[in-house]
Amino acid sequence: MPNPSLLILPGDGIGPEVMTEVRRVVSWFGDKRGLNFDVSEDLVGGAAYDAHGTPLTDATMDKAQAVDAVLLGAVGGTKYDNLDFSVKPERGLLRLRKEMDLFANLRPAQCFDALADFSSLKRDVVAGLDIMIVRELTSGIYFGEPRGIIEEGNERVGINTQRYSESEIERVARSAFELAMKRDKKLCSMEKANVMESGVLWREVVTRVGADYPEVELSHMYADAGAMQLTRWPKQFDVIVTDNLFGDMLSDLAAMLTGSLGMLPSASLGLPMANGRPKALYEPVHGSAPDIAGQGKANPIACILSFAMALRYSFDQGEEAARLERAVEAVLAQGLRTPDLLGEENRAPVTTSEMGDAILAAL
Amino acid sequence: MPNPSLLILPGDGIGPEVMTEVRRVVSWFGDKRGLNFDVSEDLVGGAAYDAHGTPLTDATMDKAQAVDAVLLGAVGGTKYDNLDFSVKPERGLLRLRKEMDLFANLRPAQCFDALADFSSLKRDVVAGLDIMIVRELTSGIYFGEPRGIIEEGNERVGINTQRYSESEIERVARSAFELAMKRDKKLCSMEKANVMESGVLWREVVTRVGADYPEVELSHMYADAGAMQLTRWPKQFDVIVTDNLFGDMLSDLAAMLTGSLGMLPSASLGLPMANGRPKALYEPVHGSAPDIAGQGKANPIACILSFAMALRYSFDQGEEAARLERAVEAVLAQGLRTPDLLGEENRAPVTTSEMGDAILAAL
Ligand SMILES: CC(C)[C@H](C(=O)O)[C@@H](O)C(=O)O
Ligand SMILES: CC(C)[C@H](C(=O)O)[C@@H](O)C(=O)O
Repeated sequence: MPNPSLLILPGDGIGPEVMTEVRRVVSWFGDKRGLNFDVSEDLVGGAAYDAHGTPLTDATMDKAQAVDAVLLGAVGGTKYDNLDFSVKPERGLLRLRKEMDLFANLRPAQCFDALADFSSLKRDVVAGLDIMIVRELTSGIYFGEPRGIIEEGNERVGINTQRYSESEIERVARSAFELAMKRDKKLCSMEKANVMESGVLWREVVTRVGADYPEVELSHMYADAGAMQLTRWPKQFDVIVTDNLFGDMLSDLAAMLTGSLGMLPSASLGLPMANGRPKALYEPVHGSAPDIAGQGKANPIACILSFAMALRYSFDQGEEAARLERAVEAVLAQGLRTPDLLGEENRAPVTTSEMGDAILAAL
Repeated sequence: MPNPSLLILPGDGIGPEVMTEVRRVVSWFGDKRGLNFDVSEDLVGGAAYDAHGTPLTDATMDKAQAVDAVLLGAVGGTKYDNLDFSVKPERGLLRLRKEMDLFANLRPAQCFDALADFSSLKRDVVAGLDIMIVRELTSGIYFGEPRGIIEEGNERVGINTQRYSESEIERVARSAFELAMKRDKKLCSMEKANVMESGVLWREVVTRVGADYPEVELSHMYADAGAMQLTRWPKQFDVIVTDNLFGDMLSDLAAMLTGSLGMLPSASLGLPMANGRPKALYEPVHGSAPDIAGQGKANPIACILSFAMALRYSFDQGEEAARLERAVEAVLAQGLRTPDLLGEENRAPVTTSEMGDAILAAL
């Protein structure tokens, strides 16, 4: 059997730095655990725009479709803020999500014990927090047509369209119920069914899918109330399922609650390929942080843990994933901190590569 | 000159209870301060549906258009969850907002000192917090066409449309800049210009309006980052301007941060009427809380402070508004707490009407 293939897309800002550490971790699993990957690398986002005038070339898109899993760093940067909408760095990422049909975006919001005090929330509100947000990623207002800026009368109008079909809702709901079955069997679905018809259909379809999962306790919440409840007492939730735009905000909010933003990975999963593995892209939740790029200040953990998610969800290596996660916890327990993890603690920060060294040592 | 007119719409759930206390406060200002109002009362939301089969009758709509200010309690309740979308309680409120053209929704998120410990956030993160969110209220995905649930192929599709014209963005931006001029001269505009064309236009128009307010420091943030930054360090903000849907979530989030949700009022303002007063509706940020309705447990303060906003924004009575706000602070300082304000404090709660009594006494 050929080695499984990984396409690494470091992207912009701190993406390349954190990805350097991920590559070392990937090699370690080959050298020490016999898990060899065929690794290739390419450009996405502003980096691809700089080289090719587009945030994702067709050739890179084809490679992404062909590999077993894509690892992405981050895209975007103030440098590209004034680019035309159609070639913004983000379009590269959105094209990957859409064309690979990665409809289920899994965003764990987990509070690392060693970092609980770093949250802006009180310790007892967040300590031990471990929730999973399942965000629909290929539809909704991110992709709906018509869209654009048109002339109407003597002014311009900006238009975007939210569209959700029953089958789009059903498949992401099913992913969320499956996850809930493996966790605490509690699923909360969030929309604005009181204001949006797309939310009415969302609620109806999620309820219908729920009939196939009688063991899962299903609840519904308006997304604004969801934002409040996440802030008030996040531990009331286990798995949350929501649409693309609400998921964008709610998962970022949940990530920030934990105080562990630089630590949080994500997985975006699609349909199974011929080899049974799902189409998959893994990326940290944090952005490209252009302000600290190239200074060795970036925290590589979120991206390293994204590779752990790849081990678990793409390669069925749950134990190896857990090994990597334990190594990360060990270095935190040892007190190693990149600058983003320091808060008011009186410690000397470590660099991106020192953090990588420590994780390799802990492995 | 005739007395200014107020239309009171108590609505559903705890709406009627809290409004009873507001009526007493309104009377006090007539008796003691010579500020007499012509007060009428009518139905909205589920209460209107129960009586008339619609969440807002045309007759009530006409009254709302004719008065100087509307005071609304809250709408909605689990009892109405299965009603058809077109007659849900919320449609009554949305019709008022739309037909009165109340485009600028002012939502102060203020942390009351006596309640800072009640926040799920650390005291130093929220103590003294005082920000103002200006939410566009008459357009965007709440009202855009096409909308609905349609058949397509052999399934249904839920559709909503976000539409923003330049003039719609411009007028709410102008309201926000005007407010910023009266406050800390710092305005942050939030959208998703990296993903949505309507956000691109939003950013462009806000920037253009900003040229008329050179003293105001204008910044832009993606709405997901905005949710994070509000959670991390809300005091970085003074005035925030954003669209209808983002504003719904961000203002609820900001309200929850303060730990003072039962305390927070809002004002929804439109164009000036013939008498120079703006079209206006005032309502608490909290919902109808059907679970505690009718038990004397509701906190009337948010609704009472909404009347204070009416004094300030509709009737140019800033000093009388401040008098009422001071009375509320005084009762809090005395230790009076409705059940929602108790947290872990070991005190006996007061009832809705006892809170009203205390505020009248403090006045
Ligand atoms: C970079 C951007 C396009 C993206 C999004 O809006 O989905 C990001 O915020 C995310 O959540 O992954
Ligand atoms: C009740 C509902 C229609 C409303 C909204 O979504 O605008 C509420 O959440 C609000 O924020 O005033």
